[in-house]
Amino acid sequence: GGVDKGVDFANYFCTYAFLYHQKEMLSDRVRMDAYFNSVFQNKHHFHNKVVLDVGTGSGILAIWSAQAGARKVYAVEATKMADHARQLVEANGVMDVVEVIEGSIEDVDLPEKVDVIISEWMGYFLLRESMFDSVICARDRWLKPTGVMYPSHARMWIAPIRSGLGDQKMNDFESAMNDWRNFVADTDTNYGVNMNVLTKAYREENQKYFLKTSLWNNLHPNQMVGTPAIIKEMDCLTATIEEIREVTSNFSLGINVDRTRLSGFAGWFDVHFRGSSQNPAMHEIELNTAPSSEDCTHWGQQVFLLHPPPRVNEGDAVIVSFSMRRSKENHRLMDVEFTYELQQSTGKRLPPVTSKFSIE
Amino acid sequence: GGVDKGVDFANYFCTYAFLYHQKEMLSDRVRMDAYFNSVFQNKHHFHNKVVLDVGTGSGILAIWSAQAGARKVYAVEATKMADHARQLVEANGVMDVVEVIEGSIEDVDLPEKVDVIISEWMGYFLLRESMFDSVICARDRWLKPTGVMYPSHARMWIAPIRSGLGDQKMNDFESAMNDWRNFVADTDTNYGVNMNVLTKAYREENQKYFLKTSLWNNLHPNQMVGTPAIIKEMDCLTATIEEIREVTSNFSLGINVDRTRLSGFAGWFDVHFRGSSQNPAMHEIELNTAPSSEDCTHWGQQVFLLHPPPRVNEGDAVIVSFSMRRSKENHRLMDVEFTYELQQSTGKRLPPVTSKFSIE
Ligand SMILES: Nc1ncnc2c1ncn2[C@@H]1O[C@H](CSCC[C@H](N)C(=O)O)[C@@H](O)[C@H]1O
Ligand SMILES: Nc1ncnc2c1ncn2[C@@H]1O[C@H](CSCC[C@H](N)C(=O)O)[C@@H](O)[C@H]1O
Repeated sequence: GGVDKGVDFANYFCTYAFLYHQKEMLSDRVRMDAYFNSVFQNKHHFHNKVVLDVGTGSGILAIWSAQAGARKVYAVEATKMADHARQLVEANGVMDVVEVIEGSIEDVDLPEKVDVIISEWMGYFLLRESMFDSVICARDRWLKPTGVMYPSHARMWIAPIRSGLGDQKMNDFESAMNDWRNFVADTDTNYGVNMNVLTKAYREENQKYFLKTSLWNNLHPNQMVGTPAIIKEMDCLTATIEEIREVTSNFSLGINVDRTRLSGFAGWFDVHFRGSSQNPAMHEIELNTAPSSEDCTHWGQQVFLLHPPPRVNEGDAVIVSFSMRRSKENHRLMDVEFTYELQQSTGKRLPPVTSKFSIE
Repeated sequence: GGVDKGVDFANYFCTYAFLYHQKEMLSDRVRMDAYFNSVFQNKHHFHNKVVLDVGTGSGILAIWSAQAGARKVYAVEATKMADHARQLVEANGVMDVVEVIEGSIEDVDLPEKVDVIISEWMGYFLLRESMFDSVICARDRWLKPTGVMYPSHARMWIAPIRSGLGDQKMNDFESAMNDWRNFVADTDTNYGVNMNVLTKAYREENQKYFLKTSLWNNLHPNQMVGTPAIIKEMDCLTATIEEIREVTSNFSLGINVDRTRLSGFAGWFDVHFRGSSQNPAMHEIELNTAPSSEDCTHWGQQVFLLHPPPRVNEGDAVIVSFSMRRSKENHRLMDVEFTYELQQSTGKRLPPVTSKFSIE
């Protein structure tokens, strides 16, 4: 719908065609352990079953599914990585079970419906990349009514945080603007053209880049200055595109650190492998990308910095109205908006502030 | 011809829509001085004349043309930068002369033919970006038979060089491969999948990335170990797309440093502003991007590293057969091939070696 395939390939799929990038995902222990355990601790979901792996990449999930006893695995991959997946399938002796199909899942025809859809579709802050659209498409077309989704559930989280990144980015922004002012003066002196009329546009461009783009970061848990909130829960068996096209949530974050700054918010996700209610998992597995001192993931957290960062105290509450929409220019990127009010423990309520971000 | 506009925008034009990038070009003193002097030291080419600026970006060349006395300037820019160019034109009081037109030069209709085409179309190693195609298109459609091109001539150069980058990139490559071997072992141990079958593909991917992609570098002149050669000369008034689609050249590089290594080759360009033979410049101006201890440009040089780097001595000659073609996947990027033979001063001639690179 409206998406140019060539452009989508140039902007999105291209990176997945590199083994370097697949390796990054395959080296993420938290991610790998979760999928591995979800499959091998729940072999009843795979034994003699037909599985569809949406976006098989290197083929890893398809191979595990086969090793766990699947009768047949359709492993669909949009990029040339499909060739490598095929090699890997053969080298690991599961070519009789796994069929690698190069193509977009949206375009692919399967000869039968499937018992399981397994997919690693999660982007930064869960929904970046909008790949779950493709999983929904696959589910609605190819999953048997009794089928299960791997993962089965997903949640989005937000927490209030402190971070040195705020000052850093503000410094970067200010030095970019100083630089610009020198540039304007020099260009006028040396080349007789006054660029000052573009100062406003340059400021906006740099604000967007340094201050209004979310950052990838693996936060330490002690950077959280309050209790995280769940802002979205999703049942992968029933979720619709309508439901994820826009995520809005109102919530309150209790501050539990005294005399600190609210540098901003961090967003992350977890997913669960629980099977379905008719066909539950034997062992429920969780994949969690929250701030952690040990179990970092390649997803990290998305950090949304506030400028200036308000001072907060233990007992304060931050009342947040959140929304996330797809960017108009690129449906795989997100526009995020936070409107927050500080409710101080004294009862005083500060006026609401709105901050907009893009997830690039 | 065959180029998807949306993809071209995603891959190429998008960067030019940022003031940050325009500023980088506008801060390149060597570039700016050359164009500035070419215009203001040759006002007879502009006075009362009609000018077309192909890819006006911020509008700088169009504004100079107006300041130098042009009667009318058409300033065509494919990206939204056109809005900023318009602002700059107004702020500098030349809105009666300069008309900014947003669009691809290929699609634009002008009400009249022009006396001058000015354009800053040069990419790394002259032809990367393939923007000269658009200048040719503009020239053939809009330049009067008596018209002049700014710049009027262009040349491509190659020199033999020494550089620490060769060892550095080889180290990077080797550590990537060590990393991969550990990864293969770990994945087998922890997750029961043997990835070794992909080692060859991973090596090729990393060779391409670390060893077979040309590098941007501002070399010091003392890194040249021999005499540079001109591999291509172009008259901008008569050059055809056929002529630049593929550049081939056979040449010999005399080594003038003793007991050194030939780390590779460096490629760069210069352009000249000489007007035309009927209507020559009063003051010929040169824009040179050769290795220089003082006059570095944002183009730097493109470095093509040889692995392993052969030892060479004063008096040796490197006999080179060179070709550059557009990449099949992206017509704005280039595939380069060097076949070289070392002719030692003793008369001994070593067997030919071929190295392929891409300019990304
Ligand atoms: N619509 C679609 N059809 C087919 N493949 C898709 C797709 N959207 C994304 N993909 C592919 O899905 C993969 C997601 S990354 C996950 C790869 C692999 N399953 C693993 O867990 O390691 C990428 O390789 C991407 O190219
Ligand atoms: N076919 C085409 N039609 C219109 N603009 C083009 C074009 N191909 C490239 N451009 C534009 O040409 C510019 C080249 S960069 C040079 C900008 C400016 N003339 C200066 O000298 O500072 C970019 O802004 C790019 O967007």
